[in-house]
Amino acid sequence: MTRAERAQLAMMLEVCAYPKPGNVDRCHDYDDTRLEHFLASALFVRPAFDRAEEGGPGLGALIREATSRTSTHGGGNTHFGAYILLIPLIAGDGISGASAAVKKTTVDDALDFYAAFSMTQVRMHHSDELDVNDPATLGIIRDRGMTLYDIMAHSAPGDMVAREWTNGFALTRKAADLLHEAGCGRHAIVEAFVRLLASETDTFIIKKHGREVAERVREQAAEVLAGTRNLESFDSDCIAAGINPGSVADLIIAGIYVALGEGWNWDC
Amino acid sequence: MTRAERAQLAMMLEVCAYPKPGNVDRCHDYDDTRLEHFLASALFVRPAFDRAEEGGPGLGALIREATSRTSTHGGGNTHFGAYILLIPLIAGDGISGASAAVKKTTVDDALDFYAAFSMTQVRMHHSDELDVNDPATLGIIRDRGMTLYDIMAHSAPGDMVAREWTNGFALTRKAADLLHEAGCGRHAIVEAFVRLLASETDTFIIKKHGREVAERVREQAAEVLAGTRNLESFDSDCIAAGINPGSVADLIIAGIYVALGEGWNWDC
Repeated sequence: MTRAERAQLAMMLEVCAYPKPGNVDRCHDYDDTRLEHFLASALFVRPAFDRAEEGGPGLGALIREATSRTSTHGGGNTHFGAYILLIPLIAGDGISGASAAVKKTTVDDALDFYAAFSMTQVRMHHSDELDVNDPATLGIIRDRGMTLYDIMAHSAPGDMVAREWTNGFALTRKAADLLHEAGCGRHAIVEAFVRLLASETDTFIIKKHGREVAERVREQAAEVLAGTRNLESFDSDCIAAGINPGSVADLIIAGIYVALGEGWNWDC
Repeated sequence: MTRAERAQLAMMLEVCAYPKPGNVDRCHDYDDTRLEHFLASALFVRPAFDRAEEGGPGLGALIREATSRTSTHGGGNTHFGAYILLIPLIAGDGISGASAAVKKTTVDDALDFYAAFSMTQVRMHHSDELDVNDPATLGIIRDRGMTLYDIMAHSAPGDMVAREWTNGFALTRKAADLLHEAGCGRHAIVEAFVRLLASETDTFIIKKHGREVAERVREQAAEVLAGTRNLESFDSDCIAAGINPGSVADLIIAGIYVALGEGWNWDC
């Protein structure tokens, strides 16, 4: 299996795993984003992953290409956060290579990343001075000579995906370890998902619903693990409230990618 | 969208569509073949489709490559029949090109096809003198100078997929027309599937369960169309009896591929 195929497989396995509280899965669609949109993205992204594997252009241009190729359907942004993790992991052939690669990013990577960002409807803090919706942002990046690594460091306090670039992909590593511990196959993905959700406050939920809601979701996931809350009803409650732990999903995709490279067995 | 991507998309959309009587779909697995196996095949087949699009080797070698790339998981044969249709459709860029391409196949194509066949557990009539399990078969093919087209013509009376090679892809055309008539999106796939199942006796069911069972399934599909049978319970009955209309599924995949190329909209 090539690295590109492994990354596609990770995207496919994550979205199919169920029940996955609050997120699109085999049994749940959102009105505007459906299972098929996620799977179409996993198909259409291939050339960008191939180029990452071949040592193609910079990480920013690759994230831009991945986003562009998968913005052709009506499902909106499906995997922007996942690409922020997968592209360096593919290009660097694993966590240590990825950690080195992200530090070498340039101002051009940052500008390409913002071009990709503008294709999505990814949420940002309204107070962020690097708001993608503000044309002045590109000028700030150029004036300050900010690299894509600098951008991620700027976002790291409030965004657990960006933070991976600055902490050696710590939660990606944790997600992969959770998969190894949980055994093989689709049930391990669900278990790793719930465990990560129970131990980390999802920053995507914070941006959308505030910290209080995100903390409650984390506690509810812990109750599922403790056996005091039913996973299916937790899922239904999240869906009903429009709560989707999107950043945890991105980290699980990255964790599946890493674990597959370490021999983790999806097919049992 | 490249032709290879369109073919992958057709494989993905077909398997996700539900309820699809008797077959693996979004909500149903078999014990040994699951949704993820079908989707993994749709990912892993890509390089074979790319080579078909680039005018690579013969159709037999391409079917062999597609089968080999997707025999790496534990789900067994997922798409052998689909490849028999998709590979010429990709290589020939549509039905008329495919109809011309299949007539140019050689003895080497036939031998490659049998090598692909031996990787699958596809059912054949026990009485067939070209039994894939009989080592003498390759000798017969060589002695008689049978091309892959000749093989398909030999199988055509009892196999609706092989028959497509000899009748100008008539049911592929019909499946595409049914999709256009049914409108856009996933519900159109289900409708086209049930309509094709109601009008054609699935030869895969004949091979597995006999003609009487296959005819009854065809009549039951017609009852669904007439509104006198419930689609969901028809699906459950098929699943319980181990009845899967595998050849109709292959034809629907080919029909989706053709229809997508004609502007049919999967995403609505």
